[in-house]
Amino acid sequence: MHMRNIKLIIEYEGTGYHGWQSQVNAAAIQDVLSSAIEKLTGEKTSLTGSGRTDTGVHALGQVANFHTASNIPADKFTYALNSILPDDIVVKKSEEADESFHSRFSAIGKKYKYLFYNSALPSALLRHRAWHIYHSLDTGAIAEGAKYFLGTHDFKAFMSTGSSIKSTIRNINEISIISESTKMGMNIMNSNLCLEIAGDGFLYNMVRIIAGTLVQIGYGKIRPEYISEIIESGDRKKAGKTAPAHGLYLVEVYY
Amino acid sequence: MHMRNIKLIIEYEGTGYHGWQSQVNAAAIQDVLSSAIEKLTGEKTSLTGSGRTDTGVHALGQVANFHTASNIPADKFTYALNSILPDDIVVKKSEEADESFHSRFSAIGKKYKYLFYNSALPSALLRHRAWHIYHSLDTGAIAEGAKYFLGTHDFKAFMSTGSSIKSTIRNINEISIISESTKMGMNIMNSNLCLEIAGDGFLYNMVRIIAGTLVQIGYGKIRPEYISEIIESGDRKKAGKTAPAHGLYLVEVYY
Repeated sequence: MHMRNIKLIIEYEGTGYHGWQSQVNAAAIQDVLSSAIEKLTGEKTSLTGSGRTDTGVHALGQVANFHTASNIPADKFTYALNSILPDDIVVKKSEEADESFHSRFSAIGKKYKYLFYNSALPSALLRHRAWHIYHSLDTGAIAEGAKYFLGTHDFKAFMSTGSSIKSTIRNINEISIISESTKMGMNIMNSNLCLEIAGDGFLYNMVRIIAGTLVQIGYGKIRPEYISEIIESGDRKKAGKTAPAHGLYLVEVYY
Repeated sequence: MHMRNIKLIIEYEGTGYHGWQSQVNAAAIQDVLSSAIEKLTGEKTSLTGSGRTDTGVHALGQVANFHTASNIPADKFTYALNSILPDDIVVKKSEEADESFHSRFSAIGKKYKYLFYNSALPSALLRHRAWHIYHSLDTGAIAEGAKYFLGTHDFKAFMSTGSSIKSTIRNINEISIISESTKMGMNIMNSNLCLEIAGDGFLYNMVRIIAGTLVQIGYGKIRPEYISEIIESGDRKKAGKTAPAHGLYLVEVYY
């Protein structure tokens, strides 16, 4: 029987789930999606994601793939799955991929956004969507500090302990800080500060530790150029705290 | 005993509530806020809002006022109430107002936004925050049609039945259509089409019926200039359907 390999691009709000990865006693996005696929195809499915996202982390472009013997046209999975899925998980695209395609091992890069809401008072509409920072931040200093992450470095200082991987060397090829007034035009529900970062891969909690460290720069507690020193030290304790999960968005996975 | 008049500006996500106004068997924002004030002051409170918002409608700048004999400094209510309130209701400002100030009767105008998400597929992150429109919209035609609402008109055709008011004449002094790609910069959680409207007052469901009618123009079902004809007819049936509540935001109340 010919097994096709179906690639999905998925948007989700992570608020109501215990992350991407299957859990024994908690709702995970992977499980909800797998169940929907099984309901549709009548087959047991092994759904692979590009990587796990933690509890509360959102995705605009998570990628996953599964093999199926069903004859449902690849693009039809989008509408069929959305009719089964809860509305906080939406399939944005479904297509047939090469037999060899693996959403995790084939990935050559990822892009994330991290949203901050810098204001004396919290926002009701952003409470699950951006990290609220009470104290005024120096966004110029943050943007200056961000540049030091660019390039190929050993990012061991920006990895949460407990992960066992061979190499902690990663390449960051894009990092930008976007700041904007919340009063303007469309951004009624938007944060007023955004970190955008892309690279060939990210260590466990790496974006959130970078976000937490940039906030330390914004407070004036560390100088922008100190980023180089933290990277060189390889010492997790020198970097800032891990920023909360709910400000993080997996935007795109590159293949 | 001297009673002070405290004015509050409030942001809320309406998703979890049965609207602003007190309900017997359902959670209303007014009740949650009143309870918090009573807990703080130890007094029974009569909290007046600038107007009700329906179930699912959001606010960035709802205004309410209450009288109190407590000696809590006016600006301290902001922080004290936020420490009691659930995080989907946030007091953004508290200040002492004139004895005569009444959040409803003193209002001379209001500003609303209505968010649309125009895309073939829905958005998980916008599911409670923007009206999802599947079919492609002609935003140029919508912007052209919007202009016909400007000025002083009898808006009877844009009012839901069941409301009993003396006059259906209102003045719209600002209306604009903002369209933007969802791919740009910060607007990760944003809609891609926004109606912004300000006037001296709005009839029941008026903004939502205007939004629903503009979508008919966007579909090409009615011509932009037909808005004048609908207004003149005073016939609710000639206007579009009432757009869903979850796209509507009360932005500001003017005094």
